[in-house]
Amino acid sequence: ASGLCHTDIHAARGDWPFKAALPLIPGHEGVGLVDRVGADVRNLKEGDRVAIPWLGWACGICEQCVSGREPLCAQGRYTGYTTNGCHADYAVAEAAFVGRVPDGVDPLDAAPLACAGITSYKAVKVSGARPSDLVAVFGIAGLGHLTVQYALMAGATVVAVDRRDARLTMAKELGATYTVNSSVEDPVEVVQGLGGANAAIVLAPAVKSFEQAFGSLRRNGVLVAIGIPKENIFQLPIFQTILLGLKVVGSPVGTRAELAETFALHASGRTKVVRETRSLEGVNEAMSDVVEGKVEARVVLDLRA
Amino acid sequence: ASGLCHTDIHAARGDWPFKAALPLIPGHEGVGLVDRVGADVRNLKEGDRVAIPWLGWACGICEQCVSGREPLCAQGRYTGYTTNGCHADYAVAEAAFVGRVPDGVDPLDAAPLACAGITSYKAVKVSGARPSDLVAVFGIAGLGHLTVQYALMAGATVVAVDRRDARLTMAKELGATYTVNSSVEDPVEVVQGLGGANAAIVLAPAVKSFEQAFGSLRRNGVLVAIGIPKENIFQLPIFQTILLGLKVVGSPVGTRAELAETFALHASGRTKVVRETRSLEGVNEAMSDVVEGKVEARVVLDLRA
Amino acid sequence: ASGLCHTDIHAARGDWPFKAALPLIPGHEGVGLVDRVGADVRNLKEGDRVAIPWLGWACGICEQCVSGREPLCAQGRYTGYTTNGCHADYAVAEAAFVGRVPDGVDPLDAAPLACAGITSYKAVKVSGARPSDLVAVFGIAGLGHLTVQYALMAGATVVAVDRRDARLTMAKELGATYTVNSSVEDPVEVVQGLGGANAAIVLAPAVKSFEQAFGSLRRNGVLVAIGIPKENIFQLPIFQTILLGLKVVGSPVGTRAELAETFALHASGRTKVVRETRSLEGVNEAMSDVVEGKVEARVVLDLRA
Amino acid sequence: ASGLCHTDIHAARGDWPFKAALPLIPGHEGVGLVDRVGADVRNLKEGDRVAIPWLGWACGICEQCVSGREPLCAQGRYTGYTTNGCHADYAVAEAAFVGRVPDGVDPLDAAPLACAGITSYKAVKVSGARPSDLVAVFGIAGLGHLTVQYALMAGATVVAVDRRDARLTMAKELGATYTVNSSVEDPVEVVQGLGGANAAIVLAPAVKSFEQAFGSLRRNGVLVAIGIPKENIFQLPIFQTILLGLKVVGSPVGTRAELAETFALHASGRTKVVRETRSLEGVNEAMSDVVEGKVEARVVLDLRA
Repeated sequence: ASGLCHTDIHAARGDWPFKAALPLIPGHEGVGLVDRVGADVRNLKEGDRVAIPWLGWACGICEQCVSGREPLCAQGRYTGYTTNGCHADYAVAEAAFVGRVPDGVDPLDAAPLACAGITSYKAVKVSGARPSDLVAVFGIAGLGHLTVQYALMAGATVVAVDRRDARLTMAKELGATYTVNSSVEDPVEVVQGLGGANAAIVLAPAVKSFEQAFGSLRRNGVLVAIGIPKENIFQLPIFQTILLGLKVVGSPVGTRAELAETFALHASGRTKVVRETRSLEGVNEAMSDVVEGKVEARVVLDLRA
Repeated sequence: ASGLCHTDIHAARGDWPFKAALPLIPGHEGVGLVDRVGADVRNLKEGDRVAIPWLGWACGICEQCVSGREPLCAQGRYTGYTTNGCHADYAVAEAAFVGRVPDGVDPLDAAPLACAGITSYKAVKVSGARPSDLVAVFGIAGLGHLTVQYALMAGATVVAVDRRDARLTMAKELGATYTVNSSVEDPVEVVQGLGGANAAIVLAPAVKSFEQAFGSLRRNGVLVAIGIPKENIFQLPIFQTILLGLKVVGSPVGTRAELAETFALHASGRTKVVRETRSLEGVNEAMSDVVEGKVEARVVLDLRA
Repeated sequence: ASGLCHTDIHAARGDWPFKAALPLIPGHEGVGLVDRVGADVRNLKEGDRVAIPWLGWACGICEQCVSGREPLCAQGRYTGYTTNGCHADYAVAEAAFVGRVPDGVDPLDAAPLACAGITSYKAVKVSGARPSDLVAVFGIAGLGHLTVQYALMAGATVVAVDRRDARLTMAKELGATYTVNSSVEDPVEVVQGLGGANAAIVLAPAVKSFEQAFGSLRRNGVLVAIGIPKENIFQLPIFQTILLGLKVVGSPVGTRAELAETFALHASGRTKVVRETRSLEGVNEAMSDVVEGKVEARVVLDLRA
Repeated sequence: ASGLCHTDIHAARGDWPFKAALPLIPGHEGVGLVDRVGADVRNLKEGDRVAIPWLGWACGICEQCVSGREPLCAQGRYTGYTTNGCHADYAVAEAAFVGRVPDGVDPLDAAPLACAGITSYKAVKVSGARPSDLVAVFGIAGLGHLTVQYALMAGATVVAVDRRDARLTMAKELGATYTVNSSVEDPVEVVQGLGGANAAIVLAPAVKSFEQAFGSLRRNGVLVAIGIPKENIFQLPIFQTILLGLKVVGSPVGTRAELAETFALHASGRTKVVRETRSLEGVNEAMSDVVEGKVEARVVLDLRA
């Protein structure tokens, strides 16, 4: 299985300041069986079921790597972006950087967890969300529907914000305490009416969502940035940031330990992955559908058969 | 003594989104002797030497107050902004919120420490600066020259950035390891050449300084915002914030405990306050001089005699 | 209502190094209606429903108070220990230190929450428990049954350890993932078999429980001490503490903000207080029953009628 | 050069619960030139000057390794304890785990920094020492004299405690603000007279020092354990730990990043290593001298010529 992430589309279209080298096989949410291992590989054997995540390799010896921040390694290789990825029948990966998929986890679930899952999980960790906190989640699609679940799991009360009712219904079913349709109501007003958010996590790649998330914060609150709008700029109000003691934090993907935690939580039945399945042949159509907003949560390419 | 802070000028001119109520006596760096105390006051007596800081009063019972964040109290009263301040012969203050000035500390030093000092001290604390860190300080005037000292005291290697050579010379004399004249060199290039800053602290109320500070950060670095540009907006690059794991944090003034720490460090000879003295009559001229950049560090009104 | 805490018994019997001054009315989990307020009280009025907690008063101006650690105030007054408490029809309290009891919360629940609740809640916060963590709770009575709930709420997997099956059944019903009867099985073996505990929280006032908790820790784990054995000494193995990077942390009661959070979580239906009711006249018998282990969870004195 | 650490003596004598496998070449503070590199080594070449530290190898893929805590890797190999070490003319090491010694650093200084340095540096980091803190250092020998320096560098006021005047004189020369000869004065009384220590770091392998360190703590203080007494037990007072909100933390050696930081600080002239030189032949005599307390700071074997 291979999950389709918005990053694949950014890679194909060259949206980001830092461009992918083409030609390229995208895909960094790959799940499959080990077909063969290199001579020195000790931690894996043929037949093991593994996931190939975004962080394809990191140096293991720099300050970032040895300090628990391997996603920040300056030498890092990114699957499906700087190296070939997983929208394919076979893929090559560094043995030390794949994650074991626990028995009983559906590969179609494991795939999105390998990026959407770990990224959401880490974002919630970075947000510091805990019981008694109010967490606002902006954008309830592939990452957002998991962010809602991790924030609830950390004990927070969750406000889900999106422009589509179908997504808010999904958030509600996943346990969100409150929902706000931002095309109808002003989320800033609603969230401030609830006392303000201790953390606002922005998955939606829209400048407007950043503005609303910032405006929703309670004193001492934190905005965690995950989504990347095309404009790439958030107009941060400095006076309010200082007077109210606010923080804006960028959260990259998680470490291998966090990937294992993400899988373990799913194996113990604590997350639900909302996704729809497409074939490898349908990948271009799937990309268009994602861009046009025709997809509720995650598309996973089913590569079996 | 009463220190002249840029905030006094913002108050007088109505620069900020949140306006001071006029007429008003500005000044929130006041030092003097207690003339009389209220009936219930137990912690002070006539003749005690105290400082009246920015945080004139906080409720003491809200979530922020009891969680170590009294400067974020929503009921807070701000000396010389929402209540009358210290550019006067006599001032009224809440007994529980003044700070004791240790013996041997010159009142002309204590005054700027009551706001410029504590704010710089807290900013360095918020930055997490420690030995092995590189800290870039943008803007070396009333707050910046103290920020340099506190960052050095925390063990960091310090890069001082300013557009004036006189200020950089002062920074050098105070111990800054590197200096950058940003009207001549690009601080981003210099600081990145040194490996990038673990923390960049922005005192200068200039959008350009925020951009340079952000660009100077090392992966996992933090920008601490103190200065407030008139435009009030920093165009935060979202992609870089996420990919490099960066943070932007607003730091308000410190608590009463941090004020006491600021004074204690000065009493033990660990800080040097650079300031020039004016008379109370000269306050308007002093304000103009500050705005026109004719003042190197802090102006303190000497109210004696 | 007035909850009966083991501390009341320690006070009456002089068990602790620091003795209560007798004669004394014990009780620091009092809930009732405000009968009258002092002249300067602004935050309360007659008829308000409040709880009187352990921390009867703190100075509000010392380093601990202004840094979010008011339970550590050296001037602190402790209800039912250094001042008269709540096992009575009327009690006197400092207006700024009582907690408001939200509508809809049963007073017989609110009473134990005012000490057993907030202390457990804070202990879980101090433990850093979060999703993916394994938390072992030693002693499942008045505090332990709440600790289990707060640790689950923070996302952790919970192992409940006690010597009585009835308490383990209760823990199981409250959601504990695993239970260990320590009179039958060795908890160290069981917990290490699960990978070791990221945090072990000791409520049981027994040296043996401290030893088992310490032995149950995973590398980098933390032991949070709440229970106070009569012997008062835990024989800490230094070599293991260093080699495995362990921590032992003492957690006193929480702040007023944490008391409000504890009540709010209960008001939203997220905790269940297991308690039995006695009359004020039955207090001595109740104390004996607690000491003899005849009580499953908390005794609350019902002072109505 | 090869530094002589007390651990070498513990290894030779089998003092610790976890024994070294004999026969064994001890020594884990080795500095030398790379003579040859393995086929896959990319980060080093012949002639590079490197240090071989205590952590000889860690797996690089476990939870501890990828979370910034490689010294806690359960697979870790310890130089001169579980593998042969550096009291020899040639030594074998894992290329990824040696540290580069910056130009200009004397090998006789670099050797002790590779264990005594990094361990002290990490202990101070773990203690959270910062400006305004009072840090008490118990035991001023090989590690302690460096701990004093790192605590000062982090801005703390330092009290050095030892039973020998010569060592206290050394501490004073290195900048310690206060010294206490614990065979003459009670350090608990002295340190509490100064307000109590925010952190007490115990290097001395003596139970008495742990008791004094604990007794010296200020409310909310932390005891950092480094020294390992033969008895291996510290009788931790539980009541005081809870009531005063204290912590006891075990600090193992640091990471490779922290080793690099330790070297960099020395290269920039910020630490002074006090040591005396012996020949390789004199190692047994040196061990006896250390045990008998005849050595002020660190013994380094000079392996040149």
